[in-house]
Amino acid sequence: MAGVAPTPLLKDELDIVIPTIRNLDFLEMWRPFFQPYHLIIVQDGDPSKTIKVPEGFDYELYNRNDINRILGPKASCISFKDSACRCFGYMVSKKKYVFTIDDDCFVAKDPSGKEINALKQHIENLLSPSTPYFFNTLYDPYREGADFVRGYPFSLREGAPTAVSHGLWLNIPDYDAPTQLVKPRERNTRYVDAVMTIPKGTLFPMCGMNLAFDRELIGPAMYFGLMGDGQPIGRYDDMWAGWCTKVICDHLGLGIKTGLPYIWHSKASNPFVNLKKEYKGIYWQEEIIPFFQQVVLPKECTTVQQCYLELSKQVKAKLSGVDPYFTKLADAMVTWIEAWDELNPSGAAAAAAPAKPNNGKA
Amino acid sequence: MAGVAPTPLLKDELDIVIPTIRNLDFLEMWRPFFQPYHLIIVQDGDPSKTIKVPEGFDYELYNRNDINRILGPKASCISFKDSACRCFGYMVSKKKYVFTIDDDCFVAKDPSGKEINALKQHIENLLSPSTPYFFNTLYDPYREGADFVRGYPFSLREGAPTAVSHGLWLNIPDYDAPTQLVKPRERNTRYVDAVMTIPKGTLFPMCGMNLAFDRELIGPAMYFGLMGDGQPIGRYDDMWAGWCTKVICDHLGLGIKTGLPYIWHSKASNPFVNLKKEYKGIYWQEEIIPFFQQVVLPKECTTVQQCYLELSKQVKAKLSGVDPYFTKLADAMVTWIEAWDELNPSGAAAAAAPAKPNNGKA
Repeated sequence: MAGVAPTPLLKDELDIVIPTIRNLDFLEMWRPFFQPYHLIIVQDGDPSKTIKVPEGFDYELYNRNDINRILGPKASCISFKDSACRCFGYMVSKKKYVFTIDDDCFVAKDPSGKEINALKQHIENLLSPSTPYFFNTLYDPYREGADFVRGYPFSLREGAPTAVSHGLWLNIPDYDAPTQLVKPRERNTRYVDAVMTIPKGTLFPMCGMNLAFDRELIGPAMYFGLMGDGQPIGRYDDMWAGWCTKVICDHLGLGIKTGLPYIWHSKASNPFVNLKKEYKGIYWQEEIIPFFQQVVLPKECTTVQQCYLELSKQVKAKLSGVDPYFTKLADAMVTWIEAWDELNPSGAAAAAAPAKPNNGKA
Repeated sequence: MAGVAPTPLLKDELDIVIPTIRNLDFLEMWRPFFQPYHLIIVQDGDPSKTIKVPEGFDYELYNRNDINRILGPKASCISFKDSACRCFGYMVSKKKYVFTIDDDCFVAKDPSGKEINALKQHIENLLSPSTPYFFNTLYDPYREGADFVRGYPFSLREGAPTAVSHGLWLNIPDYDAPTQLVKPRERNTRYVDAVMTIPKGTLFPMCGMNLAFDRELIGPAMYFGLMGDGQPIGRYDDMWAGWCTKVICDHLGLGIKTGLPYIWHSKASNPFVNLKKEYKGIYWQEEIIPFFQQVVLPKECTTVQQCYLELSKQVKAKLSGVDPYFTKLADAMVTWIEAWDELNPSGAAAAAAPAKPNNGKA
């Protein structure tokens, strides 16, 4: 692989996690931006199928057999036949940062026609602080050409460490099935040139399509739940992770940014299939959201793991009445943390043995 | 005045309030957008000075003598030699909506080069709901081409009534004196094509330069405090109004939007003069912000007036220790409400006698 100058940001500190069921031709378009980085491919569905990865990418690939082999009985917490399986990639990564992207997402262009290096923008978002305690009307005050406006308390201008960078989508917006059905032709053409912090105490719908985070700060909260095969819902994997992550970030004093970068989302998924996956979630979320809005984590919870285990208890206590599914989910949350800690024995796991993937360097 | 087709939005339901000490030549540039509306000009400083208003505008003008005559002893709550005097215009307006703008603000252009009708955008913001309870990652879901994204609870999609529309500024950003001094050449050139709701529970720095609100929903909270002549601070008038307004909107279930429209802010005020006005506020706000962050209004407060009087009590009780100024300010908050109610005897004050301005229709 030819050297690139200047060295790409965080080249040795970031993994790109891609869940997929098909050949990864979409990487061709991302080559100029992704090739310097290491990829973790989580193959969903039939493990006997061979996924082709374009030449020249450095990757490891895990299929269901690998997941079962590596996690043993704990593999039950990793979803099957649902892109929620991607969170296995977060767990086996040994890097400080993770960027995850769907294989139907392509390089978008900014209004000047320039191709957007989404990963670079995510890294910039993660490496600069967030401002969760007070809203800045000129958006991200750390961006070039911007600052804190008059009336912004000086004591809050240091900001908080950024744990999550949530990117957006041009073309096909991330709508639920009912909205897809009602507005089949709506396309997102509005490029909003902003990055902002989601304020403390406010929940948001986190989409997993174009997402980056700091594994060391928030990794164990990025569990994408039980979805797909054998489960009563789908398409709530990233939402679940987003709600859990937000309340834990709020508790731990970490920030979540949303806005730039955009990717080009190429194809709308089938709204009828989506409706089948979503309908219970659409109903349940009317109780899930108030639950997360009132969650209080005790002061004693000072690590993400502690927060997450406490959250699993509250989920079991308060959401099991909505549906028995939440008892199972609460148990899976505990299993997830056990598996995470097993694969990441210390906070700084850089020296740990690799998890023996299916495939090596290309 | 020649008729305009189509009829401008809310032509008979909105007043434009302008505080000034100079001839209003800036209105020439706004003529295509403002001429159909009624102006309320609040003349600050020497009342013997004549302010020239360009031909063809329909306006009423109040100078200090008018304010003293109309309010009597209660005129003490209206600031002198500070643009905070503008809130007198909110009080004497008989319309449902108010738009206020500074006389150093001009028509901005969008990235396509088209002149921005700021007033029209404010009206659109005010006439569509806000979403204070959950963050929508594609920003204002009521805008054309946008909607609520996957994971947004359906029960919250009706939104909340919008009480305030906070517009932004291209060219000279609204920075405090220290930031002006540090970055004298910084200009805001970033056009962010978004309108969003400030989430419930989050404070923001409300700038009075380019601001619209629903008088019926929130008018009595839009008091710009005691600033300028005889007072220890300046340049915190709009901030004060913003903090009070936000906690009251949160309590009453009303929304505040920020973002579009932009105006072109032409000239930076003198940072040395600003520093003199601001320095106590910069210090005090470190205690004021935590105060507003913890304010709880009792359920019994169901009108803006009740909320505001309760807030004045809490200001007196909790901020007077910061400086005796806050005792005076708390008293002025009460006087303001008394004066407001005197001039606006019923909620629907359309039939009330006009306040006898200095000048009539042009």
